[in-house]
Amino acid sequence: MPVNVAVVGAAGAVGREVVRLLEERDFPVGRLLLMATARTAGQTLTFRGRPQLIQPVSTDLFESVDLAFFAVPADVSRALAPEAVKRGAVVVDKSTAFREDPDVPLVVPEVNAGALAGHPGIVASPNCSTIQLVLPLRALEDLSPLRRVIVSTYQSVSGTGREAVEELRRQSAEVLQGLPVRPEVYPHPIAFNVLPHIDAFEADGYTREEMKLVNETRKILGRPDLALSATTVRVPVEVGHSEAVWVETEDPVGPDEAREAMARMPGIVVQDDPAGAVYPLPRSAAGRDEVFVGRVRRDLSSDRGLVFWVVADNLRKGAATNAVQIAELLVGRGPGG
Amino acid sequence: MPVNVAVVGAAGAVGREVVRLLEERDFPVGRLLLMATARTAGQTLTFRGRPQLIQPVSTDLFESVDLAFFAVPADVSRALAPEAVKRGAVVVDKSTAFREDPDVPLVVPEVNAGALAGHPGIVASPNCSTIQLVLPLRALEDLSPLRRVIVSTYQSVSGTGREAVEELRRQSAEVLQGLPVRPEVYPHPIAFNVLPHIDAFEADGYTREEMKLVNETRKILGRPDLALSATTVRVPVEVGHSEAVWVETEDPVGPDEAREAMARMPGIVVQDDPAGAVYPLPRSAAGRDEVFVGRVRRDLSSDRGLVFWVVADNLRKGAATNAVQIAELLVGRGPGG
Repeated sequence: MPVNVAVVGAAGAVGREVVRLLEERDFPVGRLLLMATARTAGQTLTFRGRPQLIQPVSTDLFESVDLAFFAVPADVSRALAPEAVKRGAVVVDKSTAFREDPDVPLVVPEVNAGALAGHPGIVASPNCSTIQLVLPLRALEDLSPLRRVIVSTYQSVSGTGREAVEELRRQSAEVLQGLPVRPEVYPHPIAFNVLPHIDAFEADGYTREEMKLVNETRKILGRPDLALSATTVRVPVEVGHSEAVWVETEDPVGPDEAREAMARMPGIVVQDDPAGAVYPLPRSAAGRDEVFVGRVRRDLSSDRGLVFWVVADNLRKGAATNAVQIAELLVGRGPGG
Repeated sequence: MPVNVAVVGAAGAVGREVVRLLEERDFPVGRLLLMATARTAGQTLTFRGRPQLIQPVSTDLFESVDLAFFAVPADVSRALAPEAVKRGAVVVDKSTAFREDPDVPLVVPEVNAGALAGHPGIVASPNCSTIQLVLPLRALEDLSPLRRVIVSTYQSVSGTGREAVEELRRQSAEVLQGLPVRPEVYPHPIAFNVLPHIDAFEADGYTREEMKLVNETRKILGRPDLALSATTVRVPVEVGHSEAVWVETEDPVGPDEAREAMARMPGIVVQDDPAGAVYPLPRSAAGRDEVFVGRVRRDLSSDRGLVFWVVADNLRKGAATNAVQIAELLVGRGPGG
């Protein structure tokens, strides 16, 4: 059964990946409607060999849409997604707008596909740094309940958007040429630097990005009181987020057992042969749809602790792939379809 | 009283900084002798406005030396430092050769200057990533005993040496020009990438770099059983190591109290105004001698936990500055002299 699909925010980094994935994964697209705000409307994208015009967003356009991917800022989602639902579309939203709404499922298909049941017309896809974390956490939770999670991230600039990728490239060239560096997208230079600052700061000293990791992980795992703390850091990488993770479980879980449970889990690839210099890397994960886990080892500071390193393409599994996988479940295809 | 000083490994990244600091800090240098292995001997460095030839290392040269800085690989230190001591020199060694030797003090002047008493002619300076960690840890330990420490690092390539800085710059230009990237110093490309791999891997999955952080921190703080776990990661930054740190203390310590204790500690500068985008950054710390701490906040996953972010110039306080500060203590100048 072909489905009429809209991609809202089609000109952005994630929107473009969604269009590419719909083709790559042979999603049963009937009509494809590309939309964007006035600023980027008028551009074209190629879908199944034919150029498609990106139209200015208009609520009327949703009348003929069955399924709409939203890859736009939260305020745009908040305004437009209910209009799309009113006109009969089901919305898969990538923004923060509905993620903490208790009525809206927040879904990573390999982890909590069941949460989709009885959705209210909107399904939220989590933040990039959350998605790649909850896959290995779910694999461990199946061995023993989680007690505490500590995460520090190494996040690429494409998570901010295409303009941040351009800023990184421009500033890198400036540094190499000995020229002064002008920050525009970020408050400080990102080239050859790391910034412990992603999204806005809250009063308690945490960033919103750090709180997304905490709150979304709790919701997806169904563990509203899970002890979890994060430091999120922007690094000069174009694509691919990395995370160093410490996990304590109720009962001790050994590295071999953990590695096996992760390898069995759909969506995870274990890359863990340190002697051969094999471990996940953002440059290697870029363009891939899986979550890569390695450097699994005992936590030397806790007898119930494990440490690992997890990497994923933040535009793919961290965004577009996860959204398309949610859509595949909605149209009756299994995860990984 | 002028002191006859030798710098062994004078052509390397750290050796050059030592020579620069001896001049900058007006160290009471009588005669300065620069030495290096055959490969780099013959180059010259400027000291107090005059060119100084780097001579090939020879044990005889130590006859006239009072104080020798060693900034060479561990095997060279292991072979030559005892020869220098035999000839009457006191050695400040930057390598791993003697750090875990129970008879050799491992010193960060602001933290454990007292450990220098009765040294056997050799004093070890810790690894870069350890030095910047133990300053804030000491400040917290003075408020309440530490229970557990978790660290993930963001380490610059200059920690590897000058050839790694050149590799990062060369590879970055190659990526920007769309050329293939050739890794030479590291097993994988470092440009626009992060590598969870510093120094060699041990059988339990930890790297030697991670174990240095664990073992050296325990020795310096005099806490041989302190629970501590680390993930050390190389990032595409030229100079300046950053660390995300989680600390649990016996009694709860609030962020304000922690910030005040750190600000009082010599050698630490607190940079902590998130609302104004003020936090430590490697590019800002480069060329500075202090350790910069910011993003101090409660650990959401533990009622006795604190989280912070610490940055220092790995060639300065992480290496040369700390070695020169040790020497200042040895010649009777106070820390920060």
